[in-house]
Amino acid sequence: MFYAVVLAGGSGTRFWPKSRKDQPKQLLDIIGTSPLIAQTLERLEGLFTRERVLVVTQARQLEGVRRHIDLPEENLLGEPYSRNTAAAIGLAALELKRREGEEAVFAVLPSDHYIDDLDAFLKTLLLAKEVARMGFLVTIGIRPRYPETGYGYLELGEPLLDLGFQGIYHVKRFVEKPDLPTAARYVEQGTFLWNSGTFVWQVQTLLEAIARHLPDLHRGLQRIEQADHDPDEIERIYKDLPDISIDYGVMEKADNCAVVIGDYGWSDVGSWSALAELLEKDERGNVRRGEVVAVDCSNSVLYSDDGLIGALGLRDMVVVYSGGAVLVCPVERSQDVRKVVEKLKELGKERYL
Amino acid sequence: MFYAVVLAGGSGTRFWPKSRKDQPKQLLDIIGTSPLIAQTLERLEGLFTRERVLVVTQARQLEGVRRHIDLPEENLLGEPYSRNTAAAIGLAALELKRREGEEAVFAVLPSDHYIDDLDAFLKTLLLAKEVARMGFLVTIGIRPRYPETGYGYLELGEPLLDLGFQGIYHVKRFVEKPDLPTAARYVEQGTFLWNSGTFVWQVQTLLEAIARHLPDLHRGLQRIEQADHDPDEIERIYKDLPDISIDYGVMEKADNCAVVIGDYGWSDVGSWSALAELLEKDERGNVRRGEVVAVDCSNSVLYSDDGLIGALGLRDMVVVYSGGAVLVCPVERSQDVRKVVEKLKELGKERYL
Repeated sequence: MFYAVVLAGGSGTRFWPKSRKDQPKQLLDIIGTSPLIAQTLERLEGLFTRERVLVVTQARQLEGVRRHIDLPEENLLGEPYSRNTAAAIGLAALELKRREGEEAVFAVLPSDHYIDDLDAFLKTLLLAKEVARMGFLVTIGIRPRYPETGYGYLELGEPLLDLGFQGIYHVKRFVEKPDLPTAARYVEQGTFLWNSGTFVWQVQTLLEAIARHLPDLHRGLQRIEQADHDPDEIERIYKDLPDISIDYGVMEKADNCAVVIGDYGWSDVGSWSALAELLEKDERGNVRRGEVVAVDCSNSVLYSDDGLIGALGLRDMVVVYSGGAVLVCPVERSQDVRKVVEKLKELGKERYL
Repeated sequence: MFYAVVLAGGSGTRFWPKSRKDQPKQLLDIIGTSPLIAQTLERLEGLFTRERVLVVTQARQLEGVRRHIDLPEENLLGEPYSRNTAAAIGLAALELKRREGEEAVFAVLPSDHYIDDLDAFLKTLLLAKEVARMGFLVTIGIRPRYPETGYGYLELGEPLLDLGFQGIYHVKRFVEKPDLPTAARYVEQGTFLWNSGTFVWQVQTLLEAIARHLPDLHRGLQRIEQADHDPDEIERIYKDLPDISIDYGVMEKADNCAVVIGDYGWSDVGSWSALAELLEKDERGNVRRGEVVAVDCSNSVLYSDDGLIGALGLRDMVVVYSGGAVLVCPVERSQDVRKVVEKLKELGKERYL
């Protein structure tokens, strides 16, 4: 049995003002004409029937998610609290263990990433499934195209299988988001990959790794199993689960990690400037969407789904006008948009959050 | 008799998106809490009764002007077409000739300028009135504080009267808006003044100068006098009046120009960046108005009377959010905002004009 578990719990402050508390990035149609989560599920259709796709999301986002996807209701798992990826994946693993037993394999996929080459993507998942059956915690690594400091990296270890057309390696180590000189060195060395946040493993491999490296989470999951679907009890237990990512809590510590190299035009679409890389540009390198009048502008992102943007003499700027709010920042600061959102929270400007 | 004629015919594209076709700069409360035209009229109260103040404006702006001022209806002169300052001033001169005769003196004042020192301003007008009675076309000149390229200049000639406390000179010549090196030279030489667009003269002096230097306008005004208030006839005549400024059409050519130096903290408030000079700044040099959240911003103008502006990492930028439209430009480009407005016209985006 092969399942897909789509993680849709992000609150997505980096696309403010278009993303809001109840309108996170995965529900936005910032690329193409449908929300990223709908594109993610569509992508999986070639490999998974609807019954074999689970979505894990925050309980209060369930309503928004339902509007954009068509899955059996029992395949939507709502987290009572937001407790990062380790807990969310653990919850999905319990559900699959109940349904299919511990030998089932599942892929974990972010709901809000961009993938260009569908065919290559699905082939990579199939390959990763085979490696997962061998008892590995498998991650999909992407060859870095430039020294991105917003991603985690992993270092390649020994080759695990030589399939010629697609590398499969042991993972030597995972590394956190590096600074720019370190990232540049990683790119130059050629033995580091971007950690794309896409994983494949058997239920038992994952649960064993959690038991070993995250005993608190392990105990919490056991209690959830015993709670026999009592929502109040599950909510109480979930609240106390450790708030930690699967990368940090499990992958960095485990010694049975493998990596399959994915080459399918991937982006995590992590900021307005990252988005700009994926959209069509005018002859002066501007991305324009919606009602925009630009005079003497270049290499800027001018995006409105509200009123009109009049831009004059801009270089490398981001201007986004959405839902009665406007963001203006240099392209190079677009990773810091959350700082604006944090300040809005401080100031209690609820209607813009 | 001493009258004030306030020119309120400007269409004011330089404050887009706050200024619009039917909401020109003089009707905006961009400084203080009342529209600039209301501030202009309030300023005149110390010297003129309401009966002695005329306002000339475009007929289609009459309604908007009425809302903000309290003058006798017969003191509002509507121009059927926009024909620049020479025609507007000529129209006012005809009205005053009819009411008070040719010896009446009147001051011409823009409706949308800023004046800091009211007392000094009124004293300057009184002094200019005395010079006007001697048969001069009097202009108020301002000592340049920096090499502004957006203003016309005038060069001082021989002293006309030595009053010690306030210089009165013949005008050697008027010069059009200079380029930056020329403006810098003017400032350094110390014998050039900014032409503030404020004039004082007798009705007969002005009408004689028009007769000599703008014979077409002279003939048009004669025909308007003979039209005996027939609005259709006046409209036909007005349509054909030359579209020329009083500076270019009369002052540059006349040999009886005098200048009184005004020292009362003057600004023509000609752009968003000029406005910023007059408004309070935060500790990092930003002007903020309305709902603004700024992170790491300096020396920027952040102005909203609509929704929220979230500004991140801006240096020397203008962001204005008004009436469902947003302007973003560097401070140094704020003189070119009309280029955005022109493009909006080209594109037929009427609702934003």
